[in-house]
Amino acid sequence: MRSGIEVCFANPGTTEMAFVAALDEVPGVRAVLGLHENVCTGAADGYARIAGRPAMTLLHLGPGLANGLANLHNARRANTPVVNIVGEHASWHLPYDAPLSSDIAALAATVGTTRTVRSRADIGAETIAVIADARIHLGVSTLIVPADYQYARATDAEPVPYEATARPVVSADRIEAVARQLREAGRRATIVVGGNGLSRRGQRAAGQIAAHTGAVAYSETFPATAERGGGLPDLDRLPYFPERAISALAHSDVVAVAGAEEPVAYFGYENVPSLLCPAGSLTHLARPHEDAEQALVDLALALAADGASMTAIPSKETIDSGAKLTGDFVGKVVAARLPENAIVSVEGGTCGYPFYTAAAGSVPHTVLTNTGGAIGQGLPCALGAAIAAPTRPVIALQSDGSALYTTQALWTMAREDADVVVLIAANHSYNVLRTELSRSGNAEFGPQAERLTSLDDPLMDWTALAAGFGVPAYRAGTAGELDTALSKALADGGPHLIEMSL
Amino acid sequence: MRSGIEVCFANPGTTEMAFVAALDEVPGVRAVLGLHENVCTGAADGYARIAGRPAMTLLHLGPGLANGLANLHNARRANTPVVNIVGEHASWHLPYDAPLSSDIAALAATVGTTRTVRSRADIGAETIAVIADARIHLGVSTLIVPADYQYARATDAEPVPYEATARPVVSADRIEAVARQLREAGRRATIVVGGNGLSRRGQRAAGQIAAHTGAVAYSETFPATAERGGGLPDLDRLPYFPERAISALAHSDVVAVAGAEEPVAYFGYENVPSLLCPAGSLTHLARPHEDAEQALVDLALALAADGASMTAIPSKETIDSGAKLTGDFVGKVVAARLPENAIVSVEGGTCGYPFYTAAAGSVPHTVLTNTGGAIGQGLPCALGAAIAAPTRPVIALQSDGSALYTTQALWTMAREDADVVVLIAANHSYNVLRTELSRSGNAEFGPQAERLTSLDDPLMDWTALAAGFGVPAYRAGTAGELDTALSKALADGGPHLIEMSL
Repeated sequence: MRSGIEVCFANPGTTEMAFVAALDEVPGVRAVLGLHENVCTGAADGYARIAGRPAMTLLHLGPGLANGLANLHNARRANTPVVNIVGEHASWHLPYDAPLSSDIAALAATVGTTRTVRSRADIGAETIAVIADARIHLGVSTLIVPADYQYARATDAEPVPYEATARPVVSADRIEAVARQLREAGRRATIVVGGNGLSRRGQRAAGQIAAHTGAVAYSETFPATAERGGGLPDLDRLPYFPERAISALAHSDVVAVAGAEEPVAYFGYENVPSLLCPAGSLTHLARPHEDAEQALVDLALALAADGASMTAIPSKETIDSGAKLTGDFVGKVVAARLPENAIVSVEGGTCGYPFYTAAAGSVPHTVLTNTGGAIGQGLPCALGAAIAAPTRPVIALQSDGSALYTTQALWTMAREDADVVVLIAANHSYNVLRTELSRSGNAEFGPQAERLTSLDDPLMDWTALAAGFGVPAYRAGTAGELDTALSKALADGGPHLIEMSL
Repeated sequence: MRSGIEVCFANPGTTEMAFVAALDEVPGVRAVLGLHENVCTGAADGYARIAGRPAMTLLHLGPGLANGLANLHNARRANTPVVNIVGEHASWHLPYDAPLSSDIAALAATVGTTRTVRSRADIGAETIAVIADARIHLGVSTLIVPADYQYARATDAEPVPYEATARPVVSADRIEAVARQLREAGRRATIVVGGNGLSRRGQRAAGQIAAHTGAVAYSETFPATAERGGGLPDLDRLPYFPERAISALAHSDVVAVAGAEEPVAYFGYENVPSLLCPAGSLTHLARPHEDAEQALVDLALALAADGASMTAIPSKETIDSGAKLTGDFVGKVVAARLPENAIVSVEGGTCGYPFYTAAAGSVPHTVLTNTGGAIGQGLPCALGAAIAAPTRPVIALQSDGSALYTTQALWTMAREDADVVVLIAANHSYNVLRTELSRSGNAEFGPQAERLTSLDDPLMDWTALAAGFGVPAYRAGTAGELDTALSKALADGGPHLIEMSL
């Protein structure tokens, strides 16, 4: 376990007891208990996004891995290195098909690479290999370890210190080709930045390119990690709904992606194209696994754009403290109150989009979003980020429907005294689904559709849920109340929850 | 949807909106919203165990199915018919690998049979086929439906009414062979009853056989559905820990399984055999999918045992109402207070085993247990049972560690006004893991092992969690307090939670 891995987000069972005992025998790995595996895997994702190196998860057999798959799906879409150690029945017990037996490798293969330890002698080499898998592929890698092979010491093998992946550098030819395209297209061009292009250096270069050529620069819609504020250009996110994204890109002869996936619709809609940019416009500056940051810097140089600049203007807007909270007001209050170097884990659209827009001119901060769309990611991701960066305050800006998937994360925040302020946008509905139902031509919902998209019967009491998990909580109904509660929570330190009545 | 399926446990997303709209257009299917897919799948399992026919689940893409896999694993091990409808991206959108795309079929294959709708014309036939799959295999079957094929009406196809599976009948030769073995073995024989052998009729026959031959009769350790009380013989469960089970079976020349899986250790332990019965002793009266009930009745006839009888004696023990609660006291109080025809969903050992023993002589009731070992099954299963049998009171006797996996079930209980009394055995630890750590030779736990098996920092407040989800709650520290709270909760009707401090 001495391969640069320092944290293990764990929910072990009987087949992992040798690992649990080893955590005390071999120093250097801090175990963090999650009450559900999706808390562990989401926290590992958040940890790696901030720490730049993987955390480990320790999961119990097939069902334990299954419970954590949704956030591993998100980690896969974030290109985050995550290393799962999954216990298996003792090798000689497997043929008996005991109740907890299932096809662990098949589950693991849906989210990344998989290895299985086949003998006691192999555990050291396989442990090193699974960490290398995560590093090289920037993804999820899983090691399945039968219980009888866990007693061999992984530490007998020579430890290999973890090195961050050296992302492949984009060739000078490619840079020159895209520079030529952008020069020709002028204002009829768009750059979509993602991956490590959303570092401060990458975005500054993107801003220079945009200012110099007249191209429009967007961030990908759901970045894993985006630096924001502190004088960075305001790279707004490409709109979520395809009609709006298509319209945003319609003027472009060239759409250059830099570390982002190709712009495709989140869902398919009848008579709406899946590819959002005009036919023939797409060009790749850097693939998601390549060094988009360096490519943008090189492109700015090639265009002689590095003298230009683009800086977001801090908002001077004052907010009426008596105003009833809306998504817009929440975004503005949080943007105004943001501590320097805060990390903001954003899940859900109600407040997420307004905050992103409002905080462009704020102090420097880092935004983490839900990359894969499997909901229940925001709270675990915030937890993992707080453990990766104990000196940075973390805010989880969270819609209620998705928070309900992994409320157990609150307990681990309390146990680890994590500096996370959880802001729950309590609109008591699956609002995005109500929008989608309307979009698909259902102007009036029948009683069952109504009931399947509403969370208000009974009303969830978030302050009670937080108290149940040991987290102090407040309620806010106006912009002023939110501001007061948020200031107090940030000043006090440790985990807090604020239920925002929308 | 007119194939005998009346209830749909749903957590839909954008790709299932056509189904949601159809629920209002086509009458006859009641939609029940779960806040997490593992609530939906566990409820479908509990529903089918009591109703004898499947419920449907409606799940959103790969991550939605992944979230529900743990309780589908349990349903698979319970041989329960469950029909999953999982939405997929529109067929023409799939090649774009949008963020929520993943290998749904691979996930579904780990728990049962899988079908994918390949054209708009096929949806009717495939819907009927997936229901038939669940019925014929007594298991989990999944239909993946791309969004663009959902607009075709499944109802255009001829509906096929759901018929309970006719379990294959055991041959007369097999009955006669086992009868001969039992006659020869006399007291040196054990019968392990499972599957539909745990019906009232099956257990009465097992009791007759045991009384007549001197054989010992056990229930399988984790039955899906076991009738208990009301004069049935006390078929105790085969012990969980292998050493105790091996010792219980050691005297047997013949171990006849009737509807139960072969007796194997739950986990493999060094130097403990996986097969729990003596070499050469195992004989099959009925396989888990066969008609064990009829086989037991036929066997009793073949042995001329049908005149014999074995009846559990109601306990006359009085309980000191001031006694501090222990697992034993909880078992006795609940057994004494049990309403006639109650359903008891048992998850976790702390109170589960004592209750099972104590309730042998109680009023007639049905016990549901966690068949697959994936924890977080008890509350959803209780919810599904309550929806299947609205006139029967349901008690969920639940350990705290496993309840924390699917606390969201409380909200659906409140919303549906389900008659479920949730009893939480709050020992604030993963007690079974502490036992397992000790078993594996760790007399003293290191600080990390201690921390990974304790749930007391911070203490969970179950009454606050219940309040958060809209369920009234009490706390009980003594036998008398539990008795009072349980009586009141049962008298009031609707969902209640009682935190039992152990």
